[in-house]
Amino acid sequence: MDEFTLINRYFARQAPHRRDVVVGIGDDAALCQIPAGMSLVATTDMLVEAVHFPAATEAAAVGHKALAVNLSDLAAMGADPAWFTLALAVPDADEAWLEGFSRGLFALADRCDCELIGGDTVRGPRVVAVQAMGLVPEGQGLRRAGASVGDRIYVSGTLGDAALGLAVAQGEIEAGVPQAQYLRGRLDRPEPRLELGRALRGLASAAIDVSDGLVADLGHLLSASGVGARVRLQQLPLSSAYRELHASVGWDAALSGGDDYELCFSVPEDRVAQLENVAADLPCAIHCIGEIVPRPGMCIEDVDGREYQPATSGHDHFRNDT
Amino acid sequence: MDEFTLINRYFARQAPHRRDVVVGIGDDAALCQIPAGMSLVATTDMLVEAVHFPAATEAAAVGHKALAVNLSDLAAMGADPAWFTLALAVPDADEAWLEGFSRGLFALADRCDCELIGGDTVRGPRVVAVQAMGLVPEGQGLRRAGASVGDRIYVSGTLGDAALGLAVAQGEIEAGVPQAQYLRGRLDRPEPRLELGRALRGLASAAIDVSDGLVADLGHLLSASGVGARVRLQQLPLSSAYRELHASVGWDAALSGGDDYELCFSVPEDRVAQLENVAADLPCAIHCIGEIVPRPGMCIEDVDGREYQPATSGHDHFRNDT
Repeated sequence: MDEFTLINRYFARQAPHRRDVVVGIGDDAALCQIPAGMSLVATTDMLVEAVHFPAATEAAAVGHKALAVNLSDLAAMGADPAWFTLALAVPDADEAWLEGFSRGLFALADRCDCELIGGDTVRGPRVVAVQAMGLVPEGQGLRRAGASVGDRIYVSGTLGDAALGLAVAQGEIEAGVPQAQYLRGRLDRPEPRLELGRALRGLASAAIDVSDGLVADLGHLLSASGVGARVRLQQLPLSSAYRELHASVGWDAALSGGDDYELCFSVPEDRVAQLENVAADLPCAIHCIGEIVPRPGMCIEDVDGREYQPATSGHDHFRNDT
Repeated sequence: MDEFTLINRYFARQAPHRRDVVVGIGDDAALCQIPAGMSLVATTDMLVEAVHFPAATEAAAVGHKALAVNLSDLAAMGADPAWFTLALAVPDADEAWLEGFSRGLFALADRCDCELIGGDTVRGPRVVAVQAMGLVPEGQGLRRAGASVGDRIYVSGTLGDAALGLAVAQGEIEAGVPQAQYLRGRLDRPEPRLELGRALRGLASAAIDVSDGLVADLGHLLSASGVGARVRLQQLPLSSAYRELHASVGWDAALSGGDDYELCFSVPEDRVAQLENVAADLPCAIHCIGEIVPRPGMCIEDVDGREYQPATSGHDHFRNDT
């Protein structure tokens, strides 16, 4: 199979399906129209086999996740997904892998109305780089900066599941079959919180997606906003699978585990009623976990009001390099 | 060095320098304003060490080339560069490599007014994926489709130098020191033909960049346009370094060598005078190499008017896979 056959078979689809795509796949570059009054939002994330996903990961899950982690960044900005490009290195033209990968990728892309408009397929170690582009009304993009003292801090969904899913997959902890399946699904198929991000336009004072763990990512939001936070441990939302393991694994997966792709955001007190109103219509739950305080840094309080120190503070690829 | 220090030291720069960048590096995604009447042009290309560049390639050249090959795609669409994202996998935080890479990358980015607005830096085999975004006035983007019978076919610069540079670097052919340096420079530091692409708006009937060799890429233009071409071998523009090697290497590097990143385009007869007018002000020469004919395919004529068959037809990563 040559490169063009590969692209035609697995990545080029019929005509562009979004009306704003003037030129899609098949030219030197894509050409898209931006509606008046909208700003462009752009982000990129790269997944490397054996670093970001175990080599045995189902190809469809890799396709899903490569796009999902990018859409999660768009969600954190309050943007609607529009288009994406895909740079893919694969060691060989393994048709079963490519079929699964493109199936997982396009299932999410179609559901989110995000169109593949360009790509590059090369031979190399398995590496997937997606760049996603979205649109947000001018002036309404969410930022990490903007949280003010007194704002409430929320997170979507549940925390720490993906880290536990990885620990189960690596045999570091044991879980029952349904719990293990649930946790592995949270690791392999994160759901970008796009409806929530959209609903937070004009409501949240600051937002970030939780990809490196709550402590690290809320920390970025606090630094960018020049404030601190008080977080209550017992208010961290945990899945029932996590709660069953809680006695043995403790809080650290929820505080510092990566790959959750939930949103963490701050909302001023006077918009909380409005938030609770829109939250009822969202596909994911949101939970208040604390509030913004003047003193920089993060104070995590346990059930007795004492400060809790998490063991680690998030994932970092280069921490151990000199 | 942790990931944030690495990004801050080598990739995050002061404030955004383009006025249309509302949010640059340092948030979940970038936020950019698109001027009224402009369309977005987007493309991605990935470079893998030992596949697209020898492991011994100077880091600054890798940084330059990773962006240049993307800007070349923007040039082929007639777009002005605006922003780019960078997904970079490196095996370790090698500061000398990162310093060189970012120096080569930003030297070209600054010269072309193209701002880095986002990225992802991860640990893995050395792989660089750049996604470049540009702007073109609505309706003026150049396409591969559009060439008509009678249009003249042009290429910019000279052909085949990069392929000869690679052959010299790999010890397959020998050249004098200045020739070898020139050819290697053409391989490592392609110059995106942005001024030419911009000048071709409203002039060229079709355009493509020559990244996989003239035969392959002009072939794409012809297929997309539903026409054929007659190309005259003796009109292919060759550098003096190529001409000195011509007796031993023949025409195939010029016809089928990859990595030239010149533009190939068609211009209707009645716009040729206008083209020659604008060509005088361009930093690269352009040469007419033939014309569009009705019969599909490419007929290459040698100096005696006989058909010439090139040995290979361009680079393809997956050609040898079943």
